Amino acid sequence: MARERLGILGLGLIGGSLALALKGKRGAPELWGCDRRKEHVRQALRAGAIAKGCAARELAECDVVVVCLPVLRTVEAIRALGPRMRPGTVLTDAGSVKAGIVREGERAVARGAFFVGGHPIAGTERSGFPAADARLFRGRTFILTPTEKTDEGAARRVQRIWKLAGSRPILRMDPKVHDRVFAYVSHLPHVVAYALVHSVATLPSPVPLGYSAGGFRDFTRIASSNPEMWKDIVLQNHAEVLRAMSHYRRNFHLLEDLVAKKDVPGLLAYFRRAKKTRDGLQAP
Amino acid sequence: MARERLGILGLGLIGGSLALALKGKRGAPELWGCDRRKEHVRQALRAGAIAKGCAARELAECDVVVVCLPVLRTVEAIRALGPRMRPGTVLTDAGSVKAGIVREGERAVARGAFFVGGHPIAGTERSGFPAADARLFRGRTFILTPTEKTDEGAARRVQRIWKLAGSRPILRMDPKVHDRVFAYVSHLPHVVAYALVHSVATLPSPVPLGYSAGGFRDFTRIASSNPEMWKDIVLQNHAEVLRAMSHYRRNFHLLEDLVAKKDVPGLLAYFRRAKKTRDGLQAP
Repeated sequence: MARERLGILGLGLIGGSLALALKGKRGAPELWGCDRRKEHVRQALRAGAIAKGCAARELAECDVVVVCLPVLRTVEAIRALGPRMRPGTVLTDAGSVKAGIVREGERAVARGAFFVGGHPIAGTERSGFPAADARLFRGRTFILTPTEKTDEGAARRVQRIWKLAGSRPILRMDPKVHDRVFAYVSHLPHVVAYALVHSVATLPSPVPLGYSAGGFRDFTRIASSNPEMWKDIVLQNHAEVLRAMSHYRRNFHLLEDLVAKKDVPGLLAYFRRAKKTRDGLQAP
Repeated sequence: MARERLGILGLGLIGGSLALALKGKRGAPELWGCDRRKEHVRQALRAGAIAKGCAARELAECDVVVVCLPVLRTVEAIRALGPRMRPGTVLTDAGSVKAGIVREGERAVARGAFFVGGHPIAGTERSGFPAADARLFRGRTFILTPTEKTDEGAARRVQRIWKLAGSRPILRMDPKVHDRVFAYVSHLPHVVAYALVHSVATLPSPVPLGYSAGGFRDFTRIASSNPEMWKDIVLQNHAEVLRAMSHYRRNFHLLEDLVAKKDVPGLLAYFRRAKKTRDGLQAP
């Protein structure tokens, strides 16, 4: 049996880190990489992360293809690449919104080929191949989002790749449940952080933050994330993000009322309920 | 000249850490500690952090007294202790809201004694002497909030103590400016984090966060802070916190509108402005 060939579309933070994580691993597939940013391909080749830089259409020669692009471009890429996948091959992705991508992947993929959605829970506020890191996925959760249409063999091949890259635990989640969970645990915190910094940026008279901003800077780190990427995420998970934002806004407004009224028992109950919930969250 | 005697009222996270940080330092004052929680006094004595556990009224025998209590209790303590301070002695505090405390301190302190407000920018979501740490203030900003009434010699004596405890830089800020700055860099992030977790706690149908909540858990760490302490802070800095909350709510609502309308240029401009501001914040 020939060595499996894995194609990575998009050699940015996620795709580049996946290539670096697999590099030289026992049992690792042969890696082909594709990126329209030619300098990323050159950097990946120079780092020995990929064996070959290829054009998008050549990805159809791979056994497994992982699309590692921003979510809206992931949908486009799957639409273009899906019909060209050969029988027995697997198309997967690493997008942080799943329902739309999985629907599109299952629809687009050629007869006999398989689509499985995936989401490595890892990342930083930086992007591009220069930010890629072989240890990015080590000990970080990977979520596979199979549906009733998913081929179990294909699902296992995708899991194997991410396990080899260091991801653990590997969980399985329904795509729609995934999007609801991530609207709360990831998308809402990001829009909240953006709004918090935007508030400081739009103060009628600026406050001299200077050296006082250390804690604020830590708390709002995720507001330094890529604006294009996050614009795509809120559009791709539109209904769930809007629902979460509106629920959060009502909760914030309730707190504002308690503060305005100097409602001591109300404030204590509110803070205590939040603290109890936060203290009870599972450590990763 | 006899060795200076420093009294610490409140041997919790801040007071306990101050005592531990000064312990055994060359030029450190003799330390007396007072806390109504007798076990904290015993723990501090056992750790060698204080030379003597004393009653609140005995603090008037000290040359400098640092009140390390939650802000509302700091006001009460200053009101009780201020009139008993001897001429030439200094009363100071470590509260995270300054205008009200400084006003009260300057009013309460006996003729010939001095009041200077202070705020060490350090802390964790934990509290009490068991959480105290000799390195808590090391390399962390300390803010002194003198007014036109402040005695420069008294200000320097307070600075010297915190410098010895490892604080740096030592900054000076007007008490009202301090409260406006900290409404944004600290109080608003805390209420936002509490509201975010409260949103998850009050979901009509719970979402299975499980292992997905790692990033959310990191982001909302400050929602595990002491509810009593934060109830006091929002009451003590009431006007500034309410103003910051209302300004933030309008900014959040603006973002919600952009998401609802799928306004791509608007979303990009909003996220970019926030990212630019956050990237431009001074590292601590």
